[in-house]
Amino acid sequence: MSSPDAKRLKTDDDAAYELIYWPGIPGRGEFVRLLFEEAGVSYTDHAREDGDVSVALKYISAENIGDASNPPILAPPILKHGDLIINQLPNILLYLAPKLGLVPTEGDGLFHLNQIVLSLLDGFVNELHETHHPTATSLYYEDQKPEAKKRSKYFLAERIPKFLGYVQRLLDSKASGEGPWLYGGKLTYADLVLFQCLDGTQFAFPKSIKKQQDSGNYDGVFKLYEAVKELPNIGKYLASERRVAYADGIYRHYPELEED
Amino acid sequence: MSSPDAKRLKTDDDAAYELIYWPGIPGRGEFVRLLFEEAGVSYTDHAREDGDVSVALKYISAENIGDASNPPILAPPILKHGDLIINQLPNILLYLAPKLGLVPTEGDGLFHLNQIVLSLLDGFVNELHETHHPTATSLYYEDQKPEAKKRSKYFLAERIPKFLGYVQRLLDSKASGEGPWLYGGKLTYADLVLFQCLDGTQFAFPKSIKKQQDSGNYDGVFKLYEAVKELPNIGKYLASERRVAYADGIYRHYPELEED
Repeated sequence: MSSPDAKRLKTDDDAAYELIYWPGIPGRGEFVRLLFEEAGVSYTDHAREDGDVSVALKYISAENIGDASNPPILAPPILKHGDLIINQLPNILLYLAPKLGLVPTEGDGLFHLNQIVLSLLDGFVNELHETHHPTATSLYYEDQKPEAKKRSKYFLAERIPKFLGYVQRLLDSKASGEGPWLYGGKLTYADLVLFQCLDGTQFAFPKSIKKQQDSGNYDGVFKLYEAVKELPNIGKYLASERRVAYADGIYRHYPELEED
Repeated sequence: MSSPDAKRLKTDDDAAYELIYWPGIPGRGEFVRLLFEEAGVSYTDHAREDGDVSVALKYISAENIGDASNPPILAPPILKHGDLIINQLPNILLYLAPKLGLVPTEGDGLFHLNQIVLSLLDGFVNELHETHHPTATSLYYEDQKPEAKKRSKYFLAERIPKFLGYVQRLLDSKASGEGPWLYGGKLTYADLVLFQCLDGTQFAFPKSIKKQQDSGNYDGVFKLYEAVKELPNIGKYLASERRVAYADGIYRHYPELEED
């Protein structure tokens, strides 16, 4: 039922947070989880609690044209907060971070954080995904192995140093402030994103990341990774069974992709 | 010189807008231009006015670590507005659209628009770019032609219908409201983004887009394209010499990529 009031969404802070994502992989959903876990906010994780893909499929079905207040959804992760339904990972993070106290409280910092997060996700999620699926997402990895090998070669030789170098530049900038953090001298959601980016990339390409770490060119980046890992709430989460193991999602370990 | 006040950025509406992008291609910069042009707001377009890459290169140089207020930049397009410097296309659009009157004035519509824009750019910019550069951005197209041909086959057969279908779903949604527009019954920046996405994709793959248009499955999408084209300010801009012709940027026309 659509009413003139339907546009007024209930999104007060008392509303429950629901994350809808694919079960069995950390994937893009994991970035959202890290924000909730660090903030110590409870959330419904449909991937874990339902254990199947039915909720996610319902949202992205071609027959689902949204409702009077919410446009239809292309793909998970999806966030439901009260009556509001949104998707697209950087968008969900941008919505949540101020509510969860993970951004500066004044100025235009949110746009700087959004640009940092978009850049991190470009390199360590979107481009990384292309290393095992350079031809088509609809094909199995096994059906695009020669192309994946070529793509990975350039990704590891050129793109990884480019993106690690960018993160180190962020840390070398005055705008990063004091301490190990990326922006404004305080922990923000960009730090959590960087952690998961590096953690996943390390899982996929352990030798290559070790080599980059040993180069000494990105010491700040790896120090930041450790600083996030040592946050009490994040530490507890990583040790819990809520933390999903890597599998055949974005971050996959195919040893042949990093062998010379 | 850094001072305690340096964090207070001057970004009042009187400040001049400056767009920094690569000269000679419309690329990602064109989306930003369309917002300025529709709003009738003056802006400095460094690609056109300087005519070389020097300003863009200065920003993305490995030596450039930003300043006390602005983190360093990974890649153009870049927006300078007063003392604020930001990059990442969806981030720039999100910053500009409310200032230029191209979003709903209340509610959480901005997050819906951001999710729509991110989805459009995923399909019609990022994935499209992969069709001619599926192995490495550092290689010439000529050095990755077999891989490009394979990627294009799946892009045209699977991804284009997927993304066109998504846009038609948006238009079929109650949340799109009355009229030809994507969201809330009013022209927003998402409509301008869709226009440029479709215009560029049509340039790159004219036969394929013609076929999709003739299918009749996406009539709303093509109607919206025409509606944007007929906006007085957009029409004037497209007819002006400020509109940059397609060249060897994101949108390239390689006939062999869409031949059977």
